[in-house]
Amino acid sequence: MIAGIIGATGYAGAELVRLLSGHPQVKKLFLSSVSFEGERIEDVYPNFLGRISGPLLKAGEVIASSDVVFAALPHAVGEPNAAACMERGISYIDLSADFRFDDDENVYSAWYGKTYQYPELHKASIYGLPELNRKKIQQAAAAGPVIIGNPGCYPTGASLAVFPALANGLINCDSPVIINSVTGISGGGREPSRSFHFPECADSVSPYKVASHRHLPEIGHNFKAMAAAGGYSVPQTIFTPHLSPVNRGILSTVYIPLVPQWRVTCEHTAILPPSKEIEAKTAEIHALFTGFYKDEPFVRILPAGITPTTNRVRQSNFCDISVHLDLNGETLIVISAIDNMVKGAAGQAIQNMNIVFGYDEKAGLENIPALF
Amino acid sequence: MIAGIIGATGYAGAELVRLLSGHPQVKKLFLSSVSFEGERIEDVYPNFLGRISGPLLKAGEVIASSDVVFAALPHAVGEPNAAACMERGISYIDLSADFRFDDDENVYSAWYGKTYQYPELHKASIYGLPELNRKKIQQAAAAGPVIIGNPGCYPTGASLAVFPALANGLINCDSPVIINSVTGISGGGREPSRSFHFPECADSVSPYKVASHRHLPEIGHNFKAMAAAGGYSVPQTIFTPHLSPVNRGILSTVYIPLVPQWRVTCEHTAILPPSKEIEAKTAEIHALFTGFYKDEPFVRILPAGITPTTNRVRQSNFCDISVHLDLNGETLIVISAIDNMVKGAAGQAIQNMNIVFGYDEKAGLENIPALF
Amino acid sequence: MIAGIIGATGYAGAELVRLLSGHPQVKKLFLSSVSFEGERIEDVYPNFLGRISGPLLKAGEVIASSDVVFAALPHAVGEPNAAACMERGISYIDLSADFRFDDDENVYSAWYGKTYQYPELHKASIYGLPELNRKKIQQAAAAGPVIIGNPGCYPTGASLAVFPALANGLINCDSPVIINSVTGISGGGREPSRSFHFPECADSVSPYKVASHRHLPEIGHNFKAMAAAGGYSVPQTIFTPHLSPVNRGILSTVYIPLVPQWRVTCEHTAILPPSKEIEAKTAEIHALFTGFYKDEPFVRILPAGITPTTNRVRQSNFCDISVHLDLNGETLIVISAIDNMVKGAAGQAIQNMNIVFGYDEKAGLENIPALF
Amino acid sequence: MIAGIIGATGYAGAELVRLLSGHPQVKKLFLSSVSFEGERIEDVYPNFLGRISGPLLKAGEVIASSDVVFAALPHAVGEPNAAACMERGISYIDLSADFRFDDDENVYSAWYGKTYQYPELHKASIYGLPELNRKKIQQAAAAGPVIIGNPGCYPTGASLAVFPALANGLINCDSPVIINSVTGISGGGREPSRSFHFPECADSVSPYKVASHRHLPEIGHNFKAMAAAGGYSVPQTIFTPHLSPVNRGILSTVYIPLVPQWRVTCEHTAILPPSKEIEAKTAEIHALFTGFYKDEPFVRILPAGITPTTNRVRQSNFCDISVHLDLNGETLIVISAIDNMVKGAAGQAIQNMNIVFGYDEKAGLENIPALF
Repeated sequence: MIAGIIGATGYAGAELVRLLSGHPQVKKLFLSSVSFEGERIEDVYPNFLGRISGPLLKAGEVIASSDVVFAALPHAVGEPNAAACMERGISYIDLSADFRFDDDENVYSAWYGKTYQYPELHKASIYGLPELNRKKIQQAAAAGPVIIGNPGCYPTGASLAVFPALANGLINCDSPVIINSVTGISGGGREPSRSFHFPECADSVSPYKVASHRHLPEIGHNFKAMAAAGGYSVPQTIFTPHLSPVNRGILSTVYIPLVPQWRVTCEHTAILPPSKEIEAKTAEIHALFTGFYKDEPFVRILPAGITPTTNRVRQSNFCDISVHLDLNGETLIVISAIDNMVKGAAGQAIQNMNIVFGYDEKAGLENIPALF
Repeated sequence: MIAGIIGATGYAGAELVRLLSGHPQVKKLFLSSVSFEGERIEDVYPNFLGRISGPLLKAGEVIASSDVVFAALPHAVGEPNAAACMERGISYIDLSADFRFDDDENVYSAWYGKTYQYPELHKASIYGLPELNRKKIQQAAAAGPVIIGNPGCYPTGASLAVFPALANGLINCDSPVIINSVTGISGGGREPSRSFHFPECADSVSPYKVASHRHLPEIGHNFKAMAAAGGYSVPQTIFTPHLSPVNRGILSTVYIPLVPQWRVTCEHTAILPPSKEIEAKTAEIHALFTGFYKDEPFVRILPAGITPTTNRVRQSNFCDISVHLDLNGETLIVISAIDNMVKGAAGQAIQNMNIVFGYDEKAGLENIPALF
Repeated sequence: MIAGIIGATGYAGAELVRLLSGHPQVKKLFLSSVSFEGERIEDVYPNFLGRISGPLLKAGEVIASSDVVFAALPHAVGEPNAAACMERGISYIDLSADFRFDDDENVYSAWYGKTYQYPELHKASIYGLPELNRKKIQQAAAAGPVIIGNPGCYPTGASLAVFPALANGLINCDSPVIINSVTGISGGGREPSRSFHFPECADSVSPYKVASHRHLPEIGHNFKAMAAAGGYSVPQTIFTPHLSPVNRGILSTVYIPLVPQWRVTCEHTAILPPSKEIEAKTAEIHALFTGFYKDEPFVRILPAGITPTTNRVRQSNFCDISVHLDLNGETLIVISAIDNMVKGAAGQAIQNMNIVFGYDEKAGLENIPALF
Repeated sequence: MIAGIIGATGYAGAELVRLLSGHPQVKKLFLSSVSFEGERIEDVYPNFLGRISGPLLKAGEVIASSDVVFAALPHAVGEPNAAACMERGISYIDLSADFRFDDDENVYSAWYGKTYQYPELHKASIYGLPELNRKKIQQAAAAGPVIIGNPGCYPTGASLAVFPALANGLINCDSPVIINSVTGISGGGREPSRSFHFPECADSVSPYKVASHRHLPEIGHNFKAMAAAGGYSVPQTIFTPHLSPVNRGILSTVYIPLVPQWRVTCEHTAILPPSKEIEAKTAEIHALFTGFYKDEPFVRILPAGITPTTNRVRQSNFCDISVHLDLNGETLIVISAIDNMVKGAAGQAIQNMNIVFGYDEKAGLENIPALF
């Protein structure tokens, strides 16, 4: 089959190019770029020389020649492409935020400052987090071409960390779930700016958009969907992103207040190291998480004693997860790590393509993480 | 005056050497090292060549020649030095954990696996966090030589972030205060190990000792002391440290549940960007923090809109703080940044020396942070 | 076929594990480790979880079960393994220096401080730089099992940069060829040490073993072999390695004095930007290099105007090369970049295996470099 | 005295602000910025908060109020400021290239693409490398206000490495002197660009402007001046800059062909480790270098066995140098390290100010390098 990539020269687009070039079902790629139209992809990314080669066309040319189209564009500019794909009868996988809030234009508008240009497209589109919506995607794809809103990077890592707790009623909704995330600089994209200028961000850790990052409502949507599936209430959520001088990866440390039946009762007379009861309950929750994801090809619940690190998922589609019970016995700490460019963007988009086309979900995504 | 440094070749010791060399009151330094006894400090740290020079002696020789002694040793080996200083009638500033839990040997033993060798020394020693205990230190020093337990790096950044909320009764103690910290690699000391081997930790973010780091009880002590001062209850506390590939610095993001009177009531029908009420309440809390620290020489409450970053406090004794109200209106987010080697270790030790000797508290600590 | 890896838990060994796991001809791996015998490879490298799994055996067990054996051991300990493989009639690919100096034990001994334990093995072994010895390897392998001395990382990048000039008589041997290399920290291996401790080497550039690195004689051997093939003299060679805070990669900048017929005559009255004659001669040399490597699957002579960078070859078996004529017209500057763990170690070893077994030389080595 | 800084918000300007704030003779600073006029320096650099504060004025206002003016502007825009300072009778220290080629407008124009606007200013200006021109600066300053062309970063490190060899006739001018330099990213300035965008340059080493960097003619000028002083010929020079992912620092590895009387004769039958004769001759050259710089406050010839690293000079005005004789006995290798922002820019400018005003040359520049 032939895959098209609109916006192939941004980081997420180029990662799609790289990964799809190794996909066993993809015979050919057509690429477009507004900034580099007329040039070739290997001129923009000389690391591709001798492996990947091709002209950078117009978006329309890509759509006209492809069996599926990926769009890695800025927010709020790609809807016409989606419409053109629907007209041609081919599926459209969008890596921007445009199709992530389909039932909730108000929220989308409040955070992204835009309204929908083609409202009817948003009725049929599906949020492409396979661990949440795999069946929905399969069913829709069986009926015809689909529009997939590929998830944001932070929402992917945060949602996978919390889903088992949401689905099993572990969360005490009187207190918020707190998501503290640290990301690599590639998440900011390929356009140079002060924040991502090497001397400003190397050798430094910095929070940004505290309590006001637009991935928060997307996380909230996911939590709501998963809680609803289990018949549970939805917790309030707090989300703080930080920048760290690494190229790739998101590490999310999530604090989940537990309902009484999942707590361990501790005497609070002194702060002492974790008790045996804490360890036993941790093992119980670890088993629950392991069971929840037992059929998921890309979620690894790490063995007890190992915590996720961003380098252990580097360049893979894995989401690594560990679970910990705080020594006070009342808060579950879940840590997840993903590669923001793979499971957080291009890899997950390919996973969605695999689902849409009925391929092995792991096709093209079996890369073994390099330690460094 | 003459200052002695025991354990001068570790990172904290060497930072003491560097900073004390520029202290206007310090005329001479005597240094000791077990590992490098008989060599010279500029052989171990060639960056000192032409600026700092001196032999590495035995601890006893240092104590015998100094007017004040700093000890930057591993935990649980330095008590005999403290005893020798008391006998000589000179003050002793200890950068290990040995004198941080003086009223609570049980907690110390549970986390550090040791008992006190000289229990009587622990009756008179003082925990040296100036923003908490400045007066106590001054009063004790007026009466004679003192032992100062210099605070740990994480507890310093975390405590300064939370103190204004503790002292003013902002915290709802039904939920825990959550401290999520990211540190640089120098915090692990100078001894090589797998965790701090460049290829293992560069280009990666990793949590460690989740819910079981021994700085937690120290944080708890500080919270208790400050809450008690205001007549308020003490919250439970959760602390998660992370490693990031930077040399220096600790960034702590702290989540504080608010009592009802400090909350903003929000409609929770949808997740929307922060409201004007949120902004107004944030300004009110910002003013409270600014007032709380108005006489502190090393705490900077940053102007609204600026968040702390580790590079903005690099090589200085500053603790930078910003305050944010989560858009749900019920949780205060306070972010603090320190240089773990300065305010988190050597700088704070010198600040304590300045207090003990009645010097200008800023003496030797006026370094302007370099951006990079 | 079944491949064995002795020393699987060092960095080069683990890279072999990772790359061979994706090799289309390798059906099974047997692994050994002295340090971690009895454990499993995925315990030592949790990044392998869910992809690669297997016990860590004794070297003898690996040899007994494999069709080819790779050894990634320290220098001077592996000869008995080579002997055992010869006895079993299987090929042995050695990543240490033990089989790189087979005709010259004196040089090996002078630099590595050891003598040969099994001198007869050194008569038949072959230095495995495919761009130099491909035919020799093919011929020997056609006759029976072989021992391959896999090249060092620096010699690989340096030799490939200089070979076209040596083979075509471009070099004026009155002056030395100067090789200035910068490497990433993974080249130092997995064992922690002061030099590779993060705070000591991050954010710093440092030379080491100036004019005394033991890769120099290996480079000299390669130069001699290639010059001899063309009937030319051998230049003296200077080699200076440097450490830079990157994980992977070697960038070598090589200065080659030209014989008169390849020079451009310049007036030296003032230092002015490069002339058109310089540009024309550069293009001529570029064409010569391109022609020299036209059939090599892993050498990329970059288009004019692009210089190699270590990130453009990351995790690939490529060697990128650019050529430049200094504005004085008398010195050729050739720059090469390789990934020290791939073309500089594990990848080249697999390339050798492919040649020995008559597989497609690119099998298992078609990874597309990631930009970051 | 009052110092003015034009272009105070670029990296070199901000480093001037930081260093001059600690200068014992500087009572007040006036700052200007085109990009941020009307704002305050602590808004642009929040790391200055609580230590440095002041409005960003127009260049003219700064000139009108200062006793000396530093200009840290792009090339070819600052001459009117120099003229205004001369008119006011105050000295002007220019960190751009505009006053580095005063006797050679052709070379300046060929590399920088501009002609002189005020040719008469270039007759009286002095190239401000104190180790070359200290007396010239002192004499001119005794006669009235001066214009100082502050050296480029690369020329500073390279010139100091080679001066002792030039002044003592060690260099065989039949072969070129080769300068291979590696720099940190701050050298590219504060304006964001693709090359200095974190994901493009982190974890990578890259050469740039090979054989065509405009610091080459400046290096050539310095070599010529120093050789002429000793009555020796001037060697051809090759210069290759590289980028490494560090914030600060330049490491230059310089290869110097020796005249016969300084060589060690070696048998070239095999490549063997350095002989005792090599070591003895190295010591002789080390003594020569040590003697040459014995009165220089900022040049450190390192003890034998220690090589310069960029972190050992961090944030100091030091230039560290080591000398090595290649094992072939015919090439001297000199390695130098500087902090590109200090000795390579702002620090050296202040050193020039100290000379002009007759202050202690070390005033304001006694910072002890931090190891990390």
